[in-house]
Formats: sequence, structure tokens, C-alpha cells
Amino acid sequence: MSVSAALRSRISANNFDASATISEETIAELVGLAAEAPSSFNIQHTRFVAVTDPELKGKLRAVAYGQAKVSEAAVSFVILGDTLAHEDYVVRTRAAAAAGYLPVELAERLCGMATGMYSNPAMAREEAVRSAGLSGMALMLAAEEKGLGSCPLIGFDPAGVASVLGLSARYVPAMIITVGPLAAGNMGRKHRLPVADLLRVNGGF
Amino acid sequence: MSVSAALRSRISANNFDASATISEETIAELVGLAAEAPSSFNIQHTRFVAVTDPELKGKLRAVAYGQAKVSEAAVSFVILGDTLAHEDYVVRTRAAAAAGYLPVELAERLCGMATGMYSNPAMAREEAVRSAGLSGMALMLAAEEKGLGSCPLIGFDPAGVASVLGLSARYVPAMIITVGPLAAGNMGRKHRLPVADLLRVNGGF
Repeated sequence: MSVSAALRSRISANNFDASATISEETIAELVGLAAEAPSSFNIQHTRFVAVTDPELKGKLRAVAYGQAKVSEAAVSFVILGDTLAHEDYVVRTRAAAAAGYLPVELAERLCGMATGMYSNPAMAREEAVRSAGLSGMALMLAAEEKGLGSCPLIGFDPAGVASVLGLSARYVPAMIITVGPLAAGNMGRKHRLPVADLLRVNGGF
Repeated sequence: MSVSAALRSRISANNFDASATISEETIAELVGLAAEAPSSFNIQHTRFVAVTDPELKGKLRAVAYGQAKVSEAAVSFVILGDTLAHEDYVVRTRAAAAAGYLPVELAERLCGMATGMYSNPAMAREEAVRSAGLSGMALMLAAEEKGLGSCPLIGFDPAGVASVLGLSARYVPAMIITVGPLAAGNMGRKHRLPVADLLRVNGGF
């Protein structure tokens, strides 16, 4: 399926086939494609928790204001941003330099810039959210290509999600994306504003 | 080009063909596809400034730490998040209800929820950044499908960007995405962490 066809056909679905399941192999394929999204310094902030277990889906739904799709979709992906991912990046980058993959001076400059930016908790959080957006869109388009519906949602209690999944405090739950075969009765594509309202060429808003 | 091929072939490029140009028609097509990305309540927070004018590209480059690709790429898209987009959403949604497209009670409930969430400036800003991530990924994949390279960057002074473009304070510059034909000498795809490090099924991080 072409990129433009996937973008034009995808809907944010409410009705999922509650009897459908998705294999762990397909889940891993989707995450592998979502992980191709770019990230600042290639730090790779995004992590994915795939919730398929009916009992756990029920608990997740309860902290997502009871939204039925969270438990009815074959899988609910909780998209996490790692606010300390830059620390692992420094370790990886220094190891790569020590192994001769890049000059030590360049590695140290990159590590210094990344640490300077993301040791600021507000910037780390914002980057986690931006990265989740990039990865989340990739995940939804990859799902669409596989004939699977999707819906992103941010209506959940982050502390409740962290508690249900047993998350370390370094991870920000940035989005939930439900994925699976759809049931009947979904609404059509939602209206989009005309491009003329969204775009300025060489000018401001 | 398939979604998975676009995800796997795209690189965050540094070297763009500085002599290339992109038509306004192509720019509008790319924005139309990027605007297919979903948004919370379908509020549609994202706006796009396409910078193609050489003098303006130079000014934008100056507030982006001198990064050459900002002026060398055929177009530098400044991706904006509108922190007051929910106010326009309320006007649109009430007009749609008045015209009979949805029940007035539902419209008021949606408007109340959206206003409750996004009249909080921190939540409005975070949603603007998340939406920019979703739209930005769509834009880069749409560009890839057209044979155009891309690079997202967040290394810029937001106040400087706002000043160069003459932006109203309601817009957050969330990302710059350079798009255009590539020049020689770009590095290959960057390494990605293995899926096993990024994914947990029914478990936490």
C-alpha cells in the first residue's frame, strides 16, 4: 500500500473486532517499522508496550476513562518516551567511538550536546512526546498497510497507566494506539481543513 | 512506494541539492498529505510554513545554529503547533451542530472536553508538539514517496524562528523539516536498537 493511499484511507476508528487477535510476530514487525522513525541525535527515545492480555486490557481501559476500544482492539500499544534515553545514548556513542566507528572528538561533542539538551527535564519530556508522535504515525501507517485499523488516544490517566504497567518513573506514557481488525459501524474519515488554511509559503501565521 | 519501503529507505539527510527547487503545487500536495495525520478531537493543531525564498532561508538558517541544510534544501518546512486551535474547533463544531451535522448535546460535550483540556497552556503546548510529530512523520513519508529527501531538526531558537517568520504568539515552532532532492555524500541509514530492546508484551519497562 502506498504512503499516500495509507494516509488517505486511515481513520481513527472506534469500533474494533473484539474477537480478533494479533500474533506477537506481527506486533514485533509493527514495532520494527515504527522504530524506523527518526529521533533527535538518533537517541531513540520511544518504547512500546503491547497489551494483548484481556485482563490487562481491562485494567488499561479503566485508567483510559473506560474507552471501549482500549480493551476491544486486538492490541493496545502504550507508546512511552524515555526521559533518560540520552544517558544510554552517551554510553552507546562512546562505545562506538572506542570501537573506531566515529572519531572520539565527534562522539564527545555529540554526547555533550545531547546531555546539555536533555538533562533539562522539560526538554526531555517534550522530546519524548515529539518522538512518540513521529513513531506513533509510523506505527499507524504500518498497521494500515497490513490491513489493520488504528486509533491514537491521549485520554488516559498517566499515573494510572504507569501503575497498571508497573513503569519506571523515567518513562512518560505519551499516547495509546489501539490496533486491530475493525468491526462494522465506524464513521467515515473526518473532515480536514483546506490546505490554504494550513500553509503559508514564505510568510508567517 | 509502500509504507514499509518508505520507512526503511528514508534517511535523515544532511546534504541537499542546493540548486533544486520545489513547486508550490508539490508543497501544497505534501501539506495536504501531512494534514491527514490524526489529531486530538480532530482539532487539527498543525500549521506549516514553507520557506523557499533564498533570503528567508538564510535568516532561518541563522536562527537554526547555522545548519547548512536549512538553506540548502529546496524547502524548509517550519512545523507549528497552534496552542489556541481548540478555540477555532469550538466555533467549527458549534457551526456543524447548528447546521445539523451532529447533535447539539454531543457538540457541547466535545467542546467542553476539548476546552477543559487545552485551556491549560501546558497541555496545549504538549498537544501541539505531539501533533507536530504525527504530522511531521506523515510529511517525511509523503516526501520520500515523491523521491524527495528529508531531515527533521529541533536545533533552533524558537524565539528567533518566531521573529524571522513574524509568528503570532499562539504558534509553537515544534520542528523544522527540510525537504528536497538530495546531493551526494549522505551517510547511510543510522543504526536502530533491536526490537527486543524496544518492546514489551503485557509487561512494563
